[in-house]
Amino acid sequence: MRITGFSIRDIRFPTSDEQHGSDAMNSAPDYSAAYLTLETNQPGLQGNGLAFTIGRGNEVCCAALNAIAHHAINRSLESIVADSAAFSNALTGDDQIRWLGPEKGVVHLAAAAVINAVWDLHAKASGKPLWRLLAEMSPEEIVRCVDFRYLSDALTPDEALALLKEAEAGKEARIETLLADGFPAYTTSAGWIGYSDEKVRQLCLSAIDDGWNHLKMKVGTSLDDDLRRAALIRETIGPDRSLMMDANQVWEVDEAITHIKRLAEFRPLWIEEPTSPDDILGYAAIADAVKPIKLAAGEHCQNRITFKQLMKLGAIDFCQIDSCRVAGVNENIAIILLAKKFGIPVCPHAGGVGLCEQVQHLAMFDFIALGGPLDGRLIEYVDHLHEHFLDPVTVRRGRYVAPDKPGFSIEMKQHTLRQYEYPGGPVWRRRVG
Amino acid sequence: MRITGFSIRDIRFPTSDEQHGSDAMNSAPDYSAAYLTLETNQPGLQGNGLAFTIGRGNEVCCAALNAIAHHAINRSLESIVADSAAFSNALTGDDQIRWLGPEKGVVHLAAAAVINAVWDLHAKASGKPLWRLLAEMSPEEIVRCVDFRYLSDALTPDEALALLKEAEAGKEARIETLLADGFPAYTTSAGWIGYSDEKVRQLCLSAIDDGWNHLKMKVGTSLDDDLRRAALIRETIGPDRSLMMDANQVWEVDEAITHIKRLAEFRPLWIEEPTSPDDILGYAAIADAVKPIKLAAGEHCQNRITFKQLMKLGAIDFCQIDSCRVAGVNENIAIILLAKKFGIPVCPHAGGVGLCEQVQHLAMFDFIALGGPLDGRLIEYVDHLHEHFLDPVTVRRGRYVAPDKPGFSIEMKQHTLRQYEYPGGPVWRRRVG
Repeated sequence: MRITGFSIRDIRFPTSDEQHGSDAMNSAPDYSAAYLTLETNQPGLQGNGLAFTIGRGNEVCCAALNAIAHHAINRSLESIVADSAAFSNALTGDDQIRWLGPEKGVVHLAAAAVINAVWDLHAKASGKPLWRLLAEMSPEEIVRCVDFRYLSDALTPDEALALLKEAEAGKEARIETLLADGFPAYTTSAGWIGYSDEKVRQLCLSAIDDGWNHLKMKVGTSLDDDLRRAALIRETIGPDRSLMMDANQVWEVDEAITHIKRLAEFRPLWIEEPTSPDDILGYAAIADAVKPIKLAAGEHCQNRITFKQLMKLGAIDFCQIDSCRVAGVNENIAIILLAKKFGIPVCPHAGGVGLCEQVQHLAMFDFIALGGPLDGRLIEYVDHLHEHFLDPVTVRRGRYVAPDKPGFSIEMKQHTLRQYEYPGGPVWRRRVG
Repeated sequence: MRITGFSIRDIRFPTSDEQHGSDAMNSAPDYSAAYLTLETNQPGLQGNGLAFTIGRGNEVCCAALNAIAHHAINRSLESIVADSAAFSNALTGDDQIRWLGPEKGVVHLAAAAVINAVWDLHAKASGKPLWRLLAEMSPEEIVRCVDFRYLSDALTPDEALALLKEAEAGKEARIETLLADGFPAYTTSAGWIGYSDEKVRQLCLSAIDDGWNHLKMKVGTSLDDDLRRAALIRETIGPDRSLMMDANQVWEVDEAITHIKRLAEFRPLWIEEPTSPDDILGYAAIADAVKPIKLAAGEHCQNRITFKQLMKLGAIDFCQIDSCRVAGVNENIAIILLAKKFGIPVCPHAGGVGLCEQVQHLAMFDFIALGGPLDGRLIEYVDHLHEHFLDPVTVRRGRYVAPDKPGFSIEMKQHTLRQYEYPGGPVWRRRVG
């Protein structure tokens, strides 16, 4: 099978109308996706990938996709899959593109979309959901997916192989566990900053009704507001459920320490993104000062090199990989291996557009291929925009049900693509004028 | 005066024809610029900014400029200049754009172009070259240009003010020194990796003839090649001239240590970019292992937060700011202040398209406003593409002559804009088809 062409669509959802997704850094986001389709010479078979962005950011990401997607064209799927690290390197090391990063920001989001589209295609062609395709690969095959560049001082191919081999024995049993129990999750849908206290309380109660035992709130506007909302939520959800707090990068290092110490009374399971995601030493200083309160980060960690450093310093306690912030499946495998080496649970970031659909596969691969307990792992869940996907996530009583359709669950409905394309789709033509 | 509109042009130069600019990461670069013009309601007065990129990367940067340049439109220059940190924040914190960074990569390059275009306009309107406009600002005015977000654990506004006030006394004398002696520089034009040994030798000899005492070579292909070329250059330039070595990020941490120890016999003034610019802990490990050999970095350091950490750890000995990697003049002032606090000389990265023209202003501001000796500071010089600028750099006997025309020396000739616009300009129409 050959990849014969590609198309890119600028898809935007008017989520800002209802303040969904509002947080300390984002007051009125229109969740968007730069959406890639890889076409093949096999009728009905296509690969899809996307970069989650916000509003105007989408057009920049579409431009980046346009500048790199040709790497996949006129290639056989087999030739890419035979050395997918080389394919990933061709995208991230493209010397007309690398200057714009390297390996970060817009060009890395676009690389993620292309790489993930190839994996979607691979999984569809294999007739398996991606999590199973990955989990059933041999340790050697998995290690060959990884670019160890800039990692060798923390993780070598031999060490990675050993970690995978060590976990090989229990794979089948873990697949059974996953299929029977689902994967633990937490919900972010109750705690957006733009919601009123009463709405937050109602949403917490209905989340509890739905079986959620882990809930996340946004913090970081004013300390008084944060304390009031934290008290409200803790009181509503009771002492035994987990409460996470997400500051979305708003604090200075000293400020983070002060605020976290005050918020500690509400017993957060973690504090997420207390400061700039680039400030590795800042994270380390905060982590040290607020112990035993734990820190989480990852949705804005630009690449494996940043994760490596955060882990080396013990600056994060939870590793929040994102399916399309770093260079897709391949770089996420690298980060999952790093997390295993450093003993840090992988709790993917999700939400946005199609992130839940994607990250579930990575989290399930992590559990099956690398072992360790299922408890302590958590996938984020946000209840928006799933209706636009052909294979939306299924969540039951606070747990993700393992998907069984072939692919990476990343393909959007044709109706959605027509309705929400910017600026020509009917939804936007109405709004724009 | 009001900014009334903007235009963006994709300008590319076919530099790959001659292997100019080749290094360990870039085999055939076409140096390019995403070129911004801010139009005003004052006839003949415009502000220009650019992002230096390579080939296809340029169209991604143009898209980013398109997504943010509107922030400058329908603003009076006075209102922007009165609080330029707020203007800079509006660009880098634009919540439809921030997700793509934050503050890094394509969106940050675009922010640099817009911010620098406003400074170019401001300097032109003031009738002063930018270095003089900046140097003549009061310490209070300079501090007000800086966004201290994520810096307060390393540098507070009060500390910055104290550094500037301490240096205020000698300003006039330093301006006289600069005007009389020029600013020390080094040349990179002899040592590109794609050049033959004989070409390198000839270029070194002619650089010496032209008065250069500081020369930089590229390293990082194979150790044998590096050693052979280093021996050749050291022999050609003699024992007393400075030789810098630039590895362009190709080494792993351990590999860097091994290679640098072997290259030490040729007495490099610094080793530049030994590994990933994101690997702050890697830099610290290398710096520690190769002492007293010194490290330099900056052209790919994504923002002030990365510089802060490198400096905190003593991981760099030379701070290579870039005029359009970080968010333009404002963020560069922040980095220059950090460097002063940590006692690290600022030696700007240049070359590319118009980088020499721009960074000279920043280096001269650094010297005048923050004091300390002129010796030990160095601006990079590459002898390409200056002919396309209205106010090209003047270099005499290895030193930059302070520019005296109003502005940021960033405006391109109309002829160049017509000839090299991609893909419609005559130079590209010929090549593309």
